[in-house]
Amino acid sequence: VRDETLWWEGDHLFLIDQTVLPARYETVECTTVERLAQAIRRLEVRGAPALGVAGAYGIALATRTCRNTHFPEFLAELQSQADLLRATRPTAVNLSWGIDRVMARVSRAGGVEEAREIALEEARLIAREDEETCRAIGAVGASLLPDPCTVLTHCNAGALACTRWGTALGVVRSAIAEGKEIQVIACETRPLLQGARLTAWELIRDGISVTVVPDSAAASLMRRNEIDVVLVGADRITEDALFNKIGTYSHAVTARYHEVPFYTAAPLSTFDPHRKEGEVTIEERGEEELRQCGERQIVPDGAAVFNPAFDATPLSLVTGIITERGVFFPPLEMARILSAQPPL
Amino acid sequence: VRDETLWWEGDHLFLIDQTVLPARYETVECTTVERLAQAIRRLEVRGAPALGVAGAYGIALATRTCRNTHFPEFLAELQSQADLLRATRPTAVNLSWGIDRVMARVSRAGGVEEAREIALEEARLIAREDEETCRAIGAVGASLLPDPCTVLTHCNAGALACTRWGTALGVVRSAIAEGKEIQVIACETRPLLQGARLTAWELIRDGISVTVVPDSAAASLMRRNEIDVVLVGADRITEDALFNKIGTYSHAVTARYHEVPFYTAAPLSTFDPHRKEGEVTIEERGEEELRQCGERQIVPDGAAVFNPAFDATPLSLVTGIITERGVFFPPLEMARILSAQPPL
Repeated sequence: VRDETLWWEGDHLFLIDQTVLPARYETVECTTVERLAQAIRRLEVRGAPALGVAGAYGIALATRTCRNTHFPEFLAELQSQADLLRATRPTAVNLSWGIDRVMARVSRAGGVEEAREIALEEARLIAREDEETCRAIGAVGASLLPDPCTVLTHCNAGALACTRWGTALGVVRSAIAEGKEIQVIACETRPLLQGARLTAWELIRDGISVTVVPDSAAASLMRRNEIDVVLVGADRITEDALFNKIGTYSHAVTARYHEVPFYTAAPLSTFDPHRKEGEVTIEERGEEELRQCGERQIVPDGAAVFNPAFDATPLSLVTGIITERGVFFPPLEMARILSAQPPL
Repeated sequence: VRDETLWWEGDHLFLIDQTVLPARYETVECTTVERLAQAIRRLEVRGAPALGVAGAYGIALATRTCRNTHFPEFLAELQSQADLLRATRPTAVNLSWGIDRVMARVSRAGGVEEAREIALEEARLIAREDEETCRAIGAVGASLLPDPCTVLTHCNAGALACTRWGTALGVVRSAIAEGKEIQVIACETRPLLQGARLTAWELIRDGISVTVVPDSAAASLMRRNEIDVVLVGADRITEDALFNKIGTYSHAVTARYHEVPFYTAAPLSTFDPHRKEGEVTIEERGEEELRQCGERQIVPDGAAVFNPAFDATPLSLVTGIITERGVFFPPLEMARILSAQPPL
């Protein structure tokens, strides 16, 4: 069992198949952008930072499968592969960010061979930076957690959402590394149960105490003073809103009501400071995620279902945004964030 | 397919098996209190008013299976069957209410044969009253709904939670019968999905428009002004709190935050006016409800789970309590409710 979520080996991209955890640990080998796109759509790999790394490696893959030898045509072919990859999930901004960062370097290459080298070099750098960023986020966020502390989290913003360490769960890991006593309440996160399946799996693997609860139990735990901090990841942060897994907004409202601090932990690559909430598409996923539970039919024929993958939380409900360059407190000084953002 | 949830036939109690809906419609025949207790524990029958009727019929069943012919000993045997039945679920008060109401009449009987007649007569009366009560609740509540109106509901407070018509969904049915245009958003209600499985099934059967959503999507629907009213049932209403399916409290907090009216609809038999929140036990159900999804393992070994069946919502968050004798507005004038309550 590797402790990375995705890695490059033998000129192919490998990733942990997150759809079969925790029952089975299996890996997926992606030899083409098409297979990677499928892995992203199926959520075999998911999580905003991991999607950034996957997008970057995807371009490295594409440089190996594009057939054109004439560089301008090669670049055009690469661009269409990039577009295919980018279209798989509309809400998380990191996917585009990883793709664009590699594409920007590749487009300045001297030819096809150099493009292949540069693409892989840049993708590897992004993967390495992702881990460093998570550790920096962890160090920044750890100081915000009291000792002892019970953290409520939603979905999976852990090692499995990144290459290693995690964003929200990276903060938990860093606080524990500093000697703090931290336990985690993981909301199971309907419909795909990433909290129950993935967050619990990776925390248990690291010996961190975790309790899985239905999403709907979070508010009553807050009322009973059993939650010290809510800590989630982010799929995109615009000037005015945090986009994250459906249910995040509910936790933000109930945290505000109970005066529980609500933090999001995310790399600066998650910021999309030039956009406002209304400009972002919220992905709706397939009805079968709600209609079926395994083989079992849950929703009767004739009933409609609504299955948004994300919701938007106004930043006014966010206590602080934990990044690799410090904590930002809304309302955001976007100029400051932009100046902190690493250049493409 | 019967339109009753439970009924007496051939000296036995029959009920719709609510664990296999919506995939299959099956009935359970209870010939003993033990089998009925199992049905209640397994949630083959559930819902506070239905549990009241089931408790009543349970005593009728017991009068038929108790072997003692000497009346005082017969009554003692009956009492131990009543205790067994009452212990199946601690939170919903109606179960005890139904049991106690039949026991009170039976204990004044002249002998075993008369006790058998009286028990069945009283249980049948309770079942008939349950439907009348639901229709009265519906008439009272219908006037509170705007036209058109989108109602968000949680779990199942419908015909399947009563003998017929329903409490919260009875209000929806009565409003539609008055010509109002009502659509329902049914929260799926983890972990046992009574909203997706039961609420959607019975509304579709009646041609009422229903959309199933994850529990965690309710708050963001409120933020988008897509919910006009939240309307839920009740398992117990004390002087200070509404006990209902886990997740109810979260909806109450987010409804208050978005200034959406939050109503509960319940017969007076659901009131427990002499108790306060802290005196009521919240049932915790089996871990397997969260650990498994069908055959599939969801929560990894080593992770804890917390699976409370109910939560408590302070009545200060409840806009109004819709009963068969009108709407009560918290803070409750308990004296008025007590005087409205039908005598045991």
